[in-house]
Amino acid sequence: MTTRMRTEIAEQPAALRATLDALLPRTGEIRALAERTRQLLFIARGTSDNAAVYGRYLVESHAGRLAALAAPSIATTYKRKIDLNGVLAVAISQSGRTEEIVETLVWAKDCGAATVGVTNGGPDSPLAQAADLALCTEAGVEKAVPATKTYTTQLAALAVLALGLGADVDADDLAKVPDAVDKLIADPGDLETVVEGLADKPGVVVSGRGMAFSTALETALKLKEACYLHAMGLSYADLLHGPIAVVDAETPALLVAAENSPTLPGTVALAERVVGAGAAAYTIGGGTALASAGTAALNGPDLPEWVAPMGLIVPGQLLTEALARRLGIDPDAPRGLNKVTQTD
Amino acid sequence: MTTRMRTEIAEQPAALRATLDALLPRTGEIRALAERTRQLLFIARGTSDNAAVYGRYLVESHAGRLAALAAPSIATTYKRKIDLNGVLAVAISQSGRTEEIVETLVWAKDCGAATVGVTNGGPDSPLAQAADLALCTEAGVEKAVPATKTYTTQLAALAVLALGLGADVDADDLAKVPDAVDKLIADPGDLETVVEGLADKPGVVVSGRGMAFSTALETALKLKEACYLHAMGLSYADLLHGPIAVVDAETPALLVAAENSPTLPGTVALAERVVGAGAAAYTIGGGTALASAGTAALNGPDLPEWVAPMGLIVPGQLLTEALARRLGIDPDAPRGLNKVTQTD
Repeated sequence: MTTRMRTEIAEQPAALRATLDALLPRTGEIRALAERTRQLLFIARGTSDNAAVYGRYLVESHAGRLAALAAPSIATTYKRKIDLNGVLAVAISQSGRTEEIVETLVWAKDCGAATVGVTNGGPDSPLAQAADLALCTEAGVEKAVPATKTYTTQLAALAVLALGLGADVDADDLAKVPDAVDKLIADPGDLETVVEGLADKPGVVVSGRGMAFSTALETALKLKEACYLHAMGLSYADLLHGPIAVVDAETPALLVAAENSPTLPGTVALAERVVGAGAAAYTIGGGTALASAGTAALNGPDLPEWVAPMGLIVPGQLLTEALARRLGIDPDAPRGLNKVTQTD
Repeated sequence: MTTRMRTEIAEQPAALRATLDALLPRTGEIRALAERTRQLLFIARGTSDNAAVYGRYLVESHAGRLAALAAPSIATTYKRKIDLNGVLAVAISQSGRTEEIVETLVWAKDCGAATVGVTNGGPDSPLAQAADLALCTEAGVEKAVPATKTYTTQLAALAVLALGLGADVDADDLAKVPDAVDKLIADPGDLETVVEGLADKPGVVVSGRGMAFSTALETALKLKEACYLHAMGLSYADLLHGPIAVVDAETPALLVAAENSPTLPGTVALAERVVGAGAAAYTIGGGTALASAGTAALNGPDLPEWVAPMGLIVPGQLLTEALARRLGIDPDAPRGLNKVTQTD
């Protein structure tokens, strides 16, 4: 039986095409709204928060603007106003119905921010309605609890946002993404070895840096929610500042990098360190350099770094789905989770 | 034998007194430097990053300024300039010698930020030298690898920073902190039950929100670096957005809240949920409400919320030291770590 999650992973190329077709014509609106702002503040939770991490690095490294992640409790629990003049607040919610996120976006507007909503919930969703500008992703209905196509289309929406902010990138790169994702679904690399390697382990360290940090966080979240693994997503610098002590011969690492990234040498060095400690280092992307430093390799996309995260997550999604089944878990409906999470 | 870590935990009241004596007279300098700025950007790694999380919530909830955590790789790996006019950049490094942090502070200054260095490395350390204003903590020499007194004195420095930024708090509360810490060291609560409860577990979820989020992150980091536990530090909202699936009858939770915090009701509800799932919920602070919802309780300080994190971390430090010894690990020198971590 094919799981719903596996089907939705395979729907990503079409979902990405539809989202890019819908949003690329809207860079002018983004530019106009952003005109009176100098920086960004992302508002998100869970998978959407990992998308925000991509948006943050993309905007800082290519559009020269400071971009931060909001602490929603300041708005919802402490109910404190802060000065957000000159800020473009970007709230991201798959459903567009998570009250905490909508409430924090409304708070941001009250604090002086211009607001964007990124959602798959459609233009009538509370988030789209509350935002000055709604960027609706076209992922279609997603039924499996672990988000896949709603995540990659969020990344696509944030890539379009960066274009609207004048990022120094080639917009034509976006058109290459759906085919690159298709190719990874057809050939993700040595998935079986990695599934077997993680099947009897309580935990795994997932690490990536810069533009690939979002992929590390999202891969770790998938493994937590659908495989119940103690998966820690960390930048490799943060890993070296303490958590590296957790890595021993029993704790595998999953290391991710884009092939053409300035973060690649550090990721290769980390793979060598993990292997040197007697543990398994499974790699995602990073070309031959990273693959040959590790124990088994999952493929990355043949894409420029700024759009690579839309492909780099795909082997992690396939790994999660396959590992969940291997562990006797239904990946479509892990324990403790609903499709829309309400937090306050 | 008393470990060095245990000795340094006990030195915190004196270290806090010395730090407050040194820094409280300097709020005027902070005010003057901050005058042309509207928001904060913290630059830190590891334990210092957890201190920055405290600073971030403190400044946002009590000084009405946006405060974010920097992504150092933008400066050091991507080498990209971003617009930091109007930003007060605050770099935090125990040693004052972590090159990545010094380099990122210099980058921030080049990008237009006013700069503060918080360090225990003294006025001659590279970080203090690079900053417009150096706030030197007076923790004395710290030899155990897991930072304790350098962390709590960083929190004290950030509390003073918030006063300089005009936070709507009572400065006199700070004088109560050293005695409250002393009291927790003398009576941390039911430490033995928690040590035994964690001794045979591969992982633990550590959760707190708002002002206590820093404590959750720092407690998790301590347990990772000195006990090799897969300890996930999460805000309780983030926990509900996915990682809650990891919590089962085998995975204990460590839940932290200040007694008089608006985050307390949510933390109590989470303790009830964890216990309802058949797992152990160990609590830190949160008064009778949280203690009675959990399995075993560690004490919190009798302090107002804004200064409570300087006490809330203490039971977690004592737990880490005792659990490491229980597991046959020397907490003073865990594997894989040095006192000064260099990352690039």
